[in-house]
Amino acid sequence: MNTKITKLLGIKYPIIAGGMVWCSGHRLASAVSKAGGLGLIGAGSMHPETLREHIVKCKVELEGLGVPYGVNIPLFYPELEAVISIVIEEKVPVVVTSGGSPSLFTKRLKEAGATVIHVVASTKFALKSEAAGVDAVVCEGFEAGGHNGRDETTTMVLTKLVVDAVQIPVIAAGGIATAEQFTAALALGADGVQIGSRFALCAESSAHEAYKERCYNLPEGETMLTLKSLSPVRLVKNEFYSKVEELQANGGTKEELAALLGRGRAKLGIFEGDLESGEVEIGQVATCISRGETAASIVEDLIKGYEVCLKRLQSLT
Amino acid sequence: MNTKITKLLGIKYPIIAGGMVWCSGHRLASAVSKAGGLGLIGAGSMHPETLREHIVKCKVELEGLGVPYGVNIPLFYPELEAVISIVIEEKVPVVVTSGGSPSLFTKRLKEAGATVIHVVASTKFALKSEAAGVDAVVCEGFEAGGHNGRDETTTMVLTKLVVDAVQIPVIAAGGIATAEQFTAALALGADGVQIGSRFALCAESSAHEAYKERCYNLPEGETMLTLKSLSPVRLVKNEFYSKVEELQANGGTKEELAALLGRGRAKLGIFEGDLESGEVEIGQVATCISRGETAASIVEDLIKGYEVCLKRLQSLT
Repeated sequence: MNTKITKLLGIKYPIIAGGMVWCSGHRLASAVSKAGGLGLIGAGSMHPETLREHIVKCKVELEGLGVPYGVNIPLFYPELEAVISIVIEEKVPVVVTSGGSPSLFTKRLKEAGATVIHVVASTKFALKSEAAGVDAVVCEGFEAGGHNGRDETTTMVLTKLVVDAVQIPVIAAGGIATAEQFTAALALGADGVQIGSRFALCAESSAHEAYKERCYNLPEGETMLTLKSLSPVRLVKNEFYSKVEELQANGGTKEELAALLGRGRAKLGIFEGDLESGEVEIGQVATCISRGETAASIVEDLIKGYEVCLKRLQSLT
Repeated sequence: MNTKITKLLGIKYPIIAGGMVWCSGHRLASAVSKAGGLGLIGAGSMHPETLREHIVKCKVELEGLGVPYGVNIPLFYPELEAVISIVIEEKVPVVVTSGGSPSLFTKRLKEAGATVIHVVASTKFALKSEAAGVDAVVCEGFEAGGHNGRDETTTMVLTKLVVDAVQIPVIAAGGIATAEQFTAALALGADGVQIGSRFALCAESSAHEAYKERCYNLPEGETMLTLKSLSPVRLVKNEFYSKVEELQANGGTKEELAALLGRGRAKLGIFEGDLESGEVEIGQVATCISRGETAASIVEDLIKGYEVCLKRLQSLT
């Protein structure tokens, strides 16, 4: 395929696998990049030196193939300086930043030769990112798993708005797992997609099997956006979620919510498979996802399916 | 165009204008049907005899054109029996029911010769509707204005799920106003779309001018789904919305919320233009909608834009 994103990143298909905490290690990242997309290593759940190990392994796995990979860095990460230094030292070709100001590191990363992409949930932040000099934005809708925007704008609406607002390439995210959703995102004007949930649940994801089994074909309405007064996050309903809702309904303060959240909830839910006490982060689109997939089979399904969707759309006129 | 919905309804384009309270009178309905879509009269804001007047005027306006029109009936309507009798007596060709059980009136309406469509917000209710014998379903996502489902599933996810689950034609709704969104909905597998907000704000809509002016190019995040414990509804943030949120944050009961809501809030906001005390119902997609449109110019823009989107999608492979 040939879009602004395939050109910008030098990849075959405009498909990026999200850099998801506790899912996106070197195995998933290199598998997606080998399959023609862009794989990301998720720095958010790694100590700086663990991240370096994953980057080094990813490089080895992709050696001689001439394909890029990337690292996602949440900008609220505690050891941010260390992580930024590592991606610069290791000459990571693509850096996706999220959850903070795009003006913080874009210049430094670009001067070091990286392509920089920032994740946003509104047109306002897409424009800020463009002004900060990023090469592209990911716009992520309300239906996405994990951390989320406050405006609750869905992918259907947000993608169209961001595409109209900025000149740089736009990558749609949130609610995209199948070929139909991939085609829909490109119809909305996106130049590529970032897919989280479907890759989080495939063979190469380092998430716990119990987490994956909980999420396959998840019933509709089983995820909810919660912790809104703290930092909105989409979670599967479980014991922890119920406690949060109860505290909120009883007028709990931010401090009380933060205390209930504590530390390590996402690790507990996603990596250790504690489905009741952990944060089980996944997108609404988990309902569309089944077991038994690899990164390569997902990419192949999306590309073949795109052709099928296109033929159907042509047949309607 | 040629889809299961154009065939089922005998219309030129698979575009239905929602039957919106205080917006969708005979003027809007006939204008959309004349333009090649399907216009609906919104019974939800009419006394039974007012509805009859609108039906009769709509028939006159469409006389000799051989195009259908329809009526939307919310099934929580107080004088439901009277309204059902009227649409049967007047031989309304298409009846769209919403907000209740599809098994209530489908058989009776179909025996009277009407095509029956039911609005759902989940696969579960889409399957129930199919079992009740409806001819098609509208599946409406979280981003839609006005009354909304409890699962909060967005159009991107819901459309794909409903299309896969049922055999009958599927009409996507929620977050659809522009040609890109129309194309995306069809890419998701829908056989047609129902568009609310864009028609609610056009010249033929009977909504108050102040309401329309408030909603054009509405900033992102200015609508929110609220009154969730009562019956979820998407409203523009205003004084009334703030009071609801305050009451909810303070642990207000359903009864207290119902008392605050009172009666006639939607009329106040949409028809009388009281933008602070009224319910200002509109979809997230209002951000994409500008002033100066007619029903015919909207339909034309969607159809021309579909061709442009399709060419772009083809150019990406």
